[in-house]
Amino acid sequence: MTDSPDFEITLRIYWEDTDAGGVVFYANYLKFFERARTEWLRALGHGQEQLRLSESAMFVVSDTTMRYRRPARLDDLLRVTVTLAEVRRVSMTLAQQAWRGDELLTEGTIRIVCVDAGTFLPRSIPNAITTALPQK
Amino acid sequence: MTDSPDFEITLRIYWEDTDAGGVVFYANYLKFFERARTEWLRALGHGQEQLRLSESAMFVVSDTTMRYRRPARLDDLLRVTVTLAEVRRVSMTLAQQAWRGDELLTEGTIRIVCVDAGTFLPRSIPNAITTALPQK
Amino acid sequence: MTDSPDFEITLRIYWEDTDAGGVVFYANYLKFFERARTEWLRALGHGQEQLRLSESAMFVVSDTTMRYRRPARLDDLLRVTVTLAEVRRVSMTLAQQAWRGDELLTEGTIRIVCVDAGTFLPRSIPNAITTALPQK
Amino acid sequence: MTDSPDFEITLRIYWEDTDAGGVVFYANYLKFFERARTEWLRALGHGQEQLRLSESAMFVVSDTTMRYRRPARLDDLLRVTVTLAEVRRVSMTLAQQAWRGDELLTEGTIRIVCVDAGTFLPRSIPNAITTALPQK
Repeated sequence: MTDSPDFEITLRIYWEDTDAGGVVFYANYLKFFERARTEWLRALGHGQEQLRLSESAMFVVSDTTMRYRRPARLDDLLRVTVTLAEVRRVSMTLAQQAWRGDELLTEGTIRIVCVDAGTFLPRSIPNAITTALPQK
Repeated sequence: MTDSPDFEITLRIYWEDTDAGGVVFYANYLKFFERARTEWLRALGHGQEQLRLSESAMFVVSDTTMRYRRPARLDDLLRVTVTLAEVRRVSMTLAQQAWRGDELLTEGTIRIVCVDAGTFLPRSIPNAITTALPQK
Repeated sequence: MTDSPDFEITLRIYWEDTDAGGVVFYANYLKFFERARTEWLRALGHGQEQLRLSESAMFVVSDTTMRYRRPARLDDLLRVTVTLAEVRRVSMTLAQQAWRGDELLTEGTIRIVCVDAGTFLPRSIPNAITTALPQK
Repeated sequence: MTDSPDFEITLRIYWEDTDAGGVVFYANYLKFFERARTEWLRALGHGQEQLRLSESAMFVVSDTTMRYRRPARLDDLLRVTVTLAEVRRVSMTLAQQAWRGDELLTEGTIRIVCVDAGTFLPRSIPNAITTALPQK
């Protein structure tokens, strides 16, 4: 990773994350990536439950592209990154990676769309969030 | 199992259900038991989404006692049973088991409480359901 | 879907599949797609546990591209399809979709790689499988 | 909680933990309790992967009794406790609780059995662990 990410979290692999292959079940990296995005938004000042209650706004995932390079195992400590790749009126695209030490395990691109929490129809990302985003 | 259960479903074990021990992750039996209860209610004429929309009623789990006897593995076909053990005004208790052939793998007792879907406060089980229950 | 898929399964949405947005948690479609691939392989004559024991061969997911179009909800009945898109010596690519009636909810492309169950190193897909695959 | 627990962790509730009722899916508390037990064992000096590799020993859950009192929601921060209730030659029983601030949400008793990682047969808890346990 040549450039430093906008944000990162550290997380531990537990039994719940693994499968009978002895490694982390691949679908769970989507959960890890989401934990990182959630903490990134929180660090920008926006909890998602509060966003839903105060603005009736919710982010839903519309597109994911994931590449699984190396497996993680029980007890591993992973570093999961978030880098803002693109912001549009109703959506954002994030580039994310999972690392164990200096080994890149999994990487992906996640597009999230801002929707109304009641109707699920797309709506503009709240100003409070767009103004807090890193300038690219 | 000397008595026949009130209801049963058959389900397959997939990768998603297993953990790095090579067997089914124990917490997942709660999911299997719930699938069986859901299909049992549906067989009695009541989908849970429809129950929530028409009666604003929802069942939540309040107590579980589980005993794990033998592990299940990838590709196993399990039979999951439901037997009504007790009905009260706002709650029901179900005795449930998971079998592979004639081997009892897991058994448990699950108490579910009927709540208002908005307030989560306990309320009477809808009549439409109590009248459909097996008479004990 | 203009062409008919190579295989499909039907599955029900349970509480375990949903999230607080009231809809199916997006990561779970990867599980649904895998259930369909597993049953497709089984229909071709190959259980995955048996494959692991007899050939020490395992399929792992290396790449996924998913597009989430419409949400599914509790109690929905989904049809999940599998179409073989490409076969190579050590990998296969599958095009998969989730439908509710005639509404396309989610679609994706999944690349799986055959690895040795002990070393996780790529190896040729067993002949018994390649000869059973649909000819494209 | 009158007595202080032997150990506790803090964890955040994410989308992955919730269901369409808008609250944490009850089965997931078993995962939270396990994360706490895992970190407790690690704090006593024993990672589970290392235990499996060096001693071929693994803990499996044999019995759980859970009581769900109040729901947790998205973004909640929970405190999950571990208190050793009983140690025997091949098993331990832990009393565990999940708290949000001073509200007790969920409590349970979990019995774990030490097994050989290859055969799944019960075996004595390794000395290195029993000597590290809190004296009761």
